[in-house]
Amino acid sequence: MAWRAALRSKAVIPALLSCSSHGRLCASPTFITQRNNSTSPKIKVDYDQTTGVAVMHMQSPPVNSLSLDFLTELCISLEKLEMDKGCRGLIITSNQPKVFSAGLDILEMYGKSPEHCGEFWKVVQEMWLKLYGSNMVTIAAINGSSPAGGCLLSLTCDYRIMADNPLYSIGLNETQLGIVAPFWFKETMVNTVGHRNTEVALQLGLLYKPAEALKIGLVDQLVPEDQVFSVATQTMTKWLTIPEHARQITKSMMRNPTIDKLRTNREADIQNFVSFITKESIQKSLRMYMEMLKQRKA
Amino acid sequence: MAWRAALRSKAVIPALLSCSSHGRLCASPTFITQRNNSTSPKIKVDYDQTTGVAVMHMQSPPVNSLSLDFLTELCISLEKLEMDKGCRGLIITSNQPKVFSAGLDILEMYGKSPEHCGEFWKVVQEMWLKLYGSNMVTIAAINGSSPAGGCLLSLTCDYRIMADNPLYSIGLNETQLGIVAPFWFKETMVNTVGHRNTEVALQLGLLYKPAEALKIGLVDQLVPEDQVFSVATQTMTKWLTIPEHARQITKSMMRNPTIDKLRTNREADIQNFVSFITKESIQKSLRMYMEMLKQRKA
Amino acid sequence: MAWRAALRSKAVIPALLSCSSHGRLCASPTFITQRNNSTSPKIKVDYDQTTGVAVMHMQSPPVNSLSLDFLTELCISLEKLEMDKGCRGLIITSNQPKVFSAGLDILEMYGKSPEHCGEFWKVVQEMWLKLYGSNMVTIAAINGSSPAGGCLLSLTCDYRIMADNPLYSIGLNETQLGIVAPFWFKETMVNTVGHRNTEVALQLGLLYKPAEALKIGLVDQLVPEDQVFSVATQTMTKWLTIPEHARQITKSMMRNPTIDKLRTNREADIQNFVSFITKESIQKSLRMYMEMLKQRKA
Repeated sequence: MAWRAALRSKAVIPALLSCSSHGRLCASPTFITQRNNSTSPKIKVDYDQTTGVAVMHMQSPPVNSLSLDFLTELCISLEKLEMDKGCRGLIITSNQPKVFSAGLDILEMYGKSPEHCGEFWKVVQEMWLKLYGSNMVTIAAINGSSPAGGCLLSLTCDYRIMADNPLYSIGLNETQLGIVAPFWFKETMVNTVGHRNTEVALQLGLLYKPAEALKIGLVDQLVPEDQVFSVATQTMTKWLTIPEHARQITKSMMRNPTIDKLRTNREADIQNFVSFITKESIQKSLRMYMEMLKQRKA
Repeated sequence: MAWRAALRSKAVIPALLSCSSHGRLCASPTFITQRNNSTSPKIKVDYDQTTGVAVMHMQSPPVNSLSLDFLTELCISLEKLEMDKGCRGLIITSNQPKVFSAGLDILEMYGKSPEHCGEFWKVVQEMWLKLYGSNMVTIAAINGSSPAGGCLLSLTCDYRIMADNPLYSIGLNETQLGIVAPFWFKETMVNTVGHRNTEVALQLGLLYKPAEALKIGLVDQLVPEDQVFSVATQTMTKWLTIPEHARQITKSMMRNPTIDKLRTNREADIQNFVSFITKESIQKSLRMYMEMLKQRKA
Repeated sequence: MAWRAALRSKAVIPALLSCSSHGRLCASPTFITQRNNSTSPKIKVDYDQTTGVAVMHMQSPPVNSLSLDFLTELCISLEKLEMDKGCRGLIITSNQPKVFSAGLDILEMYGKSPEHCGEFWKVVQEMWLKLYGSNMVTIAAINGSSPAGGCLLSLTCDYRIMADNPLYSIGLNETQLGIVAPFWFKETMVNTVGHRNTEVALQLGLLYKPAEALKIGLVDQLVPEDQVFSVATQTMTKWLTIPEHARQITKSMMRNPTIDKLRTNREADIQNFVSFITKESIQKSLRMYMEMLKQRKA
């Protein structure tokens, strides 16, 4: 499971507990402070104008949770790069040890107002719309575990290179936490690994070891951990030799039907998400989550 | 072919011939009596309330043909289990030797009135709608050959475990008999093995040996014949650990688009089926069937 | 790349250069004459009434380019065979060395009037509509490279047998030339190799060696070069044992949704193509093409 690796780094638990102000759960103030430190960017963007390739280093301790702040920052960065005609490729990777991204920040949904939850969901949608439909070549350099929203983030890219480390895993494991991946998570998954693999993966909330992920096509390539980034760079060079306009139109043709489904259903999708929350399923999900962590530690 | 195994058990031929009252074919009265013996149930349901798992043992000699009576009984059993909140999983298996199910009972279409054929087709639809959309975890323990409607029955389940016996086979072999699998058979197949595999399988009416079926994803797992049921039980235990509500919604999300297509086209689909019959294709299909059997015996 | 093999045969370059009357490019008059020699048919059709199988030998030197004349001839031949009830199977193969078909004749788009381009595109559509929806069993005996439109031609068939020669390749490599495969090329590809393989293949304009093509399902079978035709004939015999009417309805059921999308969008698709041309992308494409050839020769 994705969390096993994260747990070993002793960093994930405080983050998961940092919702103490809303509930009975015990929290580590140090990490709360760290989380709220919005003066330092959660994403470091290196843009090399000579190659036309930008790199997003996710650096939001401890596990690059996709919080409202994180996603807002990601969307703003994306928009800037997208508008820069010289920027043709984007590599997304993690600066945190052993984790690519742990997925949506459950604290944005726990004990929050429907308005906040709706706001949060809107930016999750925005991230996916921007990335899945990006004109740039996008490559995920997956150098750590990548469950749930972290997996979705990877799936939005054009190509996925993962560290061949059996301690890591990747997958849409929502059902394991008692929650449901929305239709556009599902469709992105179907577009990548097909209907049947998705049906089993989503029903069971499966997290795949790198070798299994490669086998079903959830990632495209496995490389030794220290080569993830260099191989991503080489792969980018190859993709950038393709005539740009033709590649962009081709990409749109493949992805727009899925994108259009969300575009025309954003409000209903937000309502759906918010109503799900008010039904206390998130509270339940958080309890299950803590339960799972306890068992894993034991 | 599926029938090879069945033929060896010497049981299939009388069933196939039991339409003597309608045609020129020679029949075995013993088996006709056996078929009409509706006092003994065609499906034995064992429901263990402690585990929440029900098992349907199909026991309609000789080959668990899906007759009007059989399917009606299956639908009633299903409805009862579905309404019992405690029943969370269903395993479907066969008590007949060497055959899971031989598929739709061709005698329900041979020489029958359009009303009868329509009635029959309606219950075939009903079976599929109930099973493909079931809230329970459904597992097919395929302990014998499973052609045509028997394959469809397997495909409605969430998971398929088949006996690793090269004498058995599985597939939608309708075209081999001169008939056509309707659109929802096709879509269930596409959802399981993809468009291209389905195109070849349905055009050629292919029956797959277990190893080939596993390769294209028509079944999920092969196990030694005497372990089919125990592995199904273990697999069920695993699936039942998944939070129920989240799993059910996820399953609906994957399957409802296909289910809705039939729901909104049931009457046209019945008309289609009935008009096909009146064109004497069933008579032709039965002749081809007998021909095939003769050749197999030789 | 597909052209490597063709280049070795020294035949491809004159064809590519034969647009000299429209541009700055140097041409070989001999080959121009050969191209325009419409008195000899570009496709030799052998129809064996005893077997009910027709064979189309493409024989348009040097590389069976799909020109307006070629495609018109192909459509007329197809129509004749389709109307002959006795003709049940069609094998398509090449009489040119090392090339199955090099795809659409770029000269039909280079420096031509919008009317001509529209006319040309209409017959490309017509070819696909007729072949993808053919009632006959269609088998591609791919005895050479098959890029772009040549790959599309193969994909329209029910089954693809390719020469196991690593010098050959097959794929929809349009983006490599700066052009875009239209939606129905894309859908035919998705129906054959799935969404994800198509996404990568079309974005990168990949040409696959036979072994790779087999792996993703772009072809169904590899055989030694000298057996391509005999295996195609044997395969045809097998397919023709299937009851015809049932097979045809099944094929329609699988392919009509895709066919209907083009049928209801033909005019828009033509406009799309023509407007793309007027944007000088074809000129650019031809320059890139020549560039590619120069590099390959070096």
